[in-house]
Amino acid sequence: MAEGSDDIQALIALIARLPGLGPRSARRIVLHLIRKRNGQMTQLAQLLDSVANASRECLTCGNITDRDICAICSDPARANGEICVVQDVADLWALERGHAFRGRYHVLGGTLSALDEIGPEDLGIPGLIDRIASEGVREVILALNATVDGQTTAHYIADALESSEVVVTGLAQGVPIGGELDYLDDGTISAALRARRSL
Amino acid sequence: MAEGSDDIQALIALIARLPGLGPRSARRIVLHLIRKRNGQMTQLAQLLDSVANASRECLTCGNITDRDICAICSDPARANGEICVVQDVADLWALERGHAFRGRYHVLGGTLSALDEIGPEDLGIPGLIDRIASEGVREVILALNATVDGQTTAHYIADALESSEVVVTGLAQGVPIGGELDYLDDGTISAALRARRSL
Repeated sequence: MAEGSDDIQALIALIARLPGLGPRSARRIVLHLIRKRNGQMTQLAQLLDSVANASRECLTCGNITDRDICAICSDPARANGEICVVQDVADLWALERGHAFRGRYHVLGGTLSALDEIGPEDLGIPGLIDRIASEGVREVILALNATVDGQTTAHYIADALESSEVVVTGLAQGVPIGGELDYLDDGTISAALRARRSL
Repeated sequence: MAEGSDDIQALIALIARLPGLGPRSARRIVLHLIRKRNGQMTQLAQLLDSVANASRECLTCGNITDRDICAICSDPARANGEICVVQDVADLWALERGHAFRGRYHVLGGTLSALDEIGPEDLGIPGLIDRIASEGVREVILALNATVDGQTTAHYIADALESSEVVVTGLAQGVPIGGELDYLDDGTISAALRARRSL
């Protein structure tokens, strides 16, 4: 038993399974934490426990929250007429960090996938259509990933909303801010050229 | 508040400060854990708490353990005549994973450093010298990093033991297994050439 105790080995194995980590980085993190076992490590254990117990999905939009309705859905200062549809909570967080959108969200929790047998019901798309009617939504922004699955899902939702009066939009595609043309893939360059605008 | 709740934000900030991680990887890890909040996340909180409470330094060698004397120091199957001196516990773990050494260890917990005012007493070097006398040690292997600080510390310990009868050795320096000469630094190539051996 090289690593101190059974619990330490179990801890390293558990941390090594987190996304982006492996045995080497897990050992480094565990040793760092053991060195700070009276401060950072105890604090981390307590926070993990309280977040694990308090976290749930917002009943309206699917965002992660510690109450029934999340802070965004219950914020009276945000516009009711716009819903931004995202694949998962990480995308919602990314949009919020941009501070560019002040409407409501809807988290699908995945994309349509015939292979994985994920259909519209699994993603709460009927619930989204109900929300659009009941909340008087004027615009649905499909902020889905520019992948095949993301775009398939976007097309499905756009088709389902075709008969309604709501405006369906998607994120602009083009050159990222600070991006160098030389390093961009051909698809992005063609899309940016097709969507060129007058200056 | 983009990330769900104050506790979630505090958790992300705490995880982002761990070695090798940052805000982006911390957010990814926290979302992954919240998705598994009834299994992996609760288990991680419990293990962190129990390791934080149980871990301490072995009174003999300084290894991390959950008892007074670590499993290596109290293992009767290991040789008493050899002490391997390492800079910190990560190095001890690395040597144990190699399964090549079956003696005892001594963890310095750092290297001598005039700049940081770390002297021999801070590293427990007097304690090491006492151990060498009381445990009838015949060989001290200085498995210290091949850095300036590591080698300064190695020289200091070798000098301090010069008057005793103990044999002081260091790890061989040369080409790592699987290493390609083309990618090695000049210092390593020169050292490997100077220490060449007949085949």
